[in-house]
Amino acid sequence: MKILSFKLNGEVKFGTKVKKEEAVWDVLAIQEQLQALPSFPNTIIEGISLGFDFVEKVRRLVEAAQNSPQVNDFKIPFTEIEWLAPIPRTPKNILCVGKNYDAHAKEMGAEAAPSDLLVFTKPPTSISADEQTLSVHATKTDSYDYEGELAVVIGKFGRDIPKNQALDYVFGYTIANDLTARDVQDRHKQFFLGKSLDGSCPMGPYVVTKDEIPDPQVLTVVTKVNGEIRQNGSTKDMIFTVENLISIISHHVTLEPGDIILTGTPAGVGKGMNPPTFLKAGDEVKVSIEGIGTLVNRFQ
Amino acid sequence: MKILSFKLNGEVKFGTKVKKEEAVWDVLAIQEQLQALPSFPNTIIEGISLGFDFVEKVRRLVEAAQNSPQVNDFKIPFTEIEWLAPIPRTPKNILCVGKNYDAHAKEMGAEAAPSDLLVFTKPPTSISADEQTLSVHATKTDSYDYEGELAVVIGKFGRDIPKNQALDYVFGYTIANDLTARDVQDRHKQFFLGKSLDGSCPMGPYVVTKDEIPDPQVLTVVTKVNGEIRQNGSTKDMIFTVENLISIISHHVTLEPGDIILTGTPAGVGKGMNPPTFLKAGDEVKVSIEGIGTLVNRFQ
Repeated sequence: MKILSFKLNGEVKFGTKVKKEEAVWDVLAIQEQLQALPSFPNTIIEGISLGFDFVEKVRRLVEAAQNSPQVNDFKIPFTEIEWLAPIPRTPKNILCVGKNYDAHAKEMGAEAAPSDLLVFTKPPTSISADEQTLSVHATKTDSYDYEGELAVVIGKFGRDIPKNQALDYVFGYTIANDLTARDVQDRHKQFFLGKSLDGSCPMGPYVVTKDEIPDPQVLTVVTKVNGEIRQNGSTKDMIFTVENLISIISHHVTLEPGDIILTGTPAGVGKGMNPPTFLKAGDEVKVSIEGIGTLVNRFQ
Repeated sequence: MKILSFKLNGEVKFGTKVKKEEAVWDVLAIQEQLQALPSFPNTIIEGISLGFDFVEKVRRLVEAAQNSPQVNDFKIPFTEIEWLAPIPRTPKNILCVGKNYDAHAKEMGAEAAPSDLLVFTKPPTSISADEQTLSVHATKTDSYDYEGELAVVIGKFGRDIPKNQALDYVFGYTIANDLTARDVQDRHKQFFLGKSLDGSCPMGPYVVTKDEIPDPQVLTVVTKVNGEIRQNGSTKDMIFTVENLISIISHHVTLEPGDIILTGTPAGVGKGMNPPTFLKAGDEVKVSIEGIGTLVNRFQ
């Protein structure tokens, strides 16, 4: 199931994509008007924390809508919504992994990928959405760079999660662009400041529930800038797999429903080009992951 | 004014210390029963975001209680409450500064303090309270270390804050102990994992409103382990002052009411001792800052 968050008439909502249509089922409106279920979560994080029951509830609401004479009132065309990140506000900073692809570690100047995981964070104030126009923050950085990544959405509380149970804690997957001010990142050593500018974490368009992605280690990640392919990687080349990341991170940090882990970027970032080529006003960046979709942002 | 958060009969509340008594005014109960004000915030973050109006509202509730025949019902002795961190859940990860005292940078093995600010974060799941017994996480680290610090509580939204306006964004100050798993911190390079164990950010006992601390750069910070003085620093030795920290951080990260900045620790941490001496079960750590109070935690 593809789940998205959006704004409609100023209200924050969530819903599921209508199959074969460019529209969303307004599940909160379905429940409000048809009262098809005894209860339904008000926020996407409440929903996610119900796990697969949430998906079932959404399915039943869609079914109720399809059997209703008002069926068309509940389908909102994408042209009428403002996209939000699937999780518009994470409960803690977004958990991010550095240098998790060998070829990327090398293009960043390292001799090899680090043997121990690099984990840093991006604040919830950096979250932005598919289709949103973002600033290149020209007064703060002269080297704003893209990093297309698979993002894992955590579905339940967990700590010290064994590797072989790790995928049980996943609700689904989305796409992220871990936008980075390279000069700030380098200057301040700890990555946080260079990773935290407003809007620097676009995510979306959907959370795809994990039943649709049985193996997260066989996905192609493609990033295009103005139509030109810059990154063309596969999650099979991750040094630490999704299972490993969840296990290692949860050994140190209690995970909560709605937490997001960015799994690192493959080779091909602007800093690794010869000469290094950074984002500028007017650019369009598309990150595509098979089975999830395409995250598009224009820059100004 | 000294503001604290606490649990009473399972409910999360906040209030202000009763002058010269070891008790808290239960301001939510005062408002509920006496309806002395047309409106009053339900959470401490809502309160903080009102700025000085919040302090005024609390004062008026205390006055109403003092004029009420039920006055004693509204004073809860500290022996009856469970302390919480003043901000039990921050809106984003706690913003932390590394190596902000020259003598500490040197005891950590650096030749000098870094010329650009080191900023990392601790997740809200690391927040713990005064008087709370904390784990030394013996299965995860053999080098759990204390860092007594002045903590700044942000009162309003801000970005690109000029240095000379920075203190306008402060609601008040509290005390923090930035507990750190040194082995994890060293192994993973980026500090986050080593700084994020559950309970590793005790804060409290109070937020002291900024009117009581006109100059945050003249405060003594003393950390004792089992009664022995280990850190005895002064905020006058900060490399980046509170004003500077707010200005630099807000240049990269939008600050929100309830955000907290830990300002770095003076010399005297366990890692800097000869031989290095880390926390063990049975230890008691007290961090005292003049004008704020003492944060006490025992370890198991």
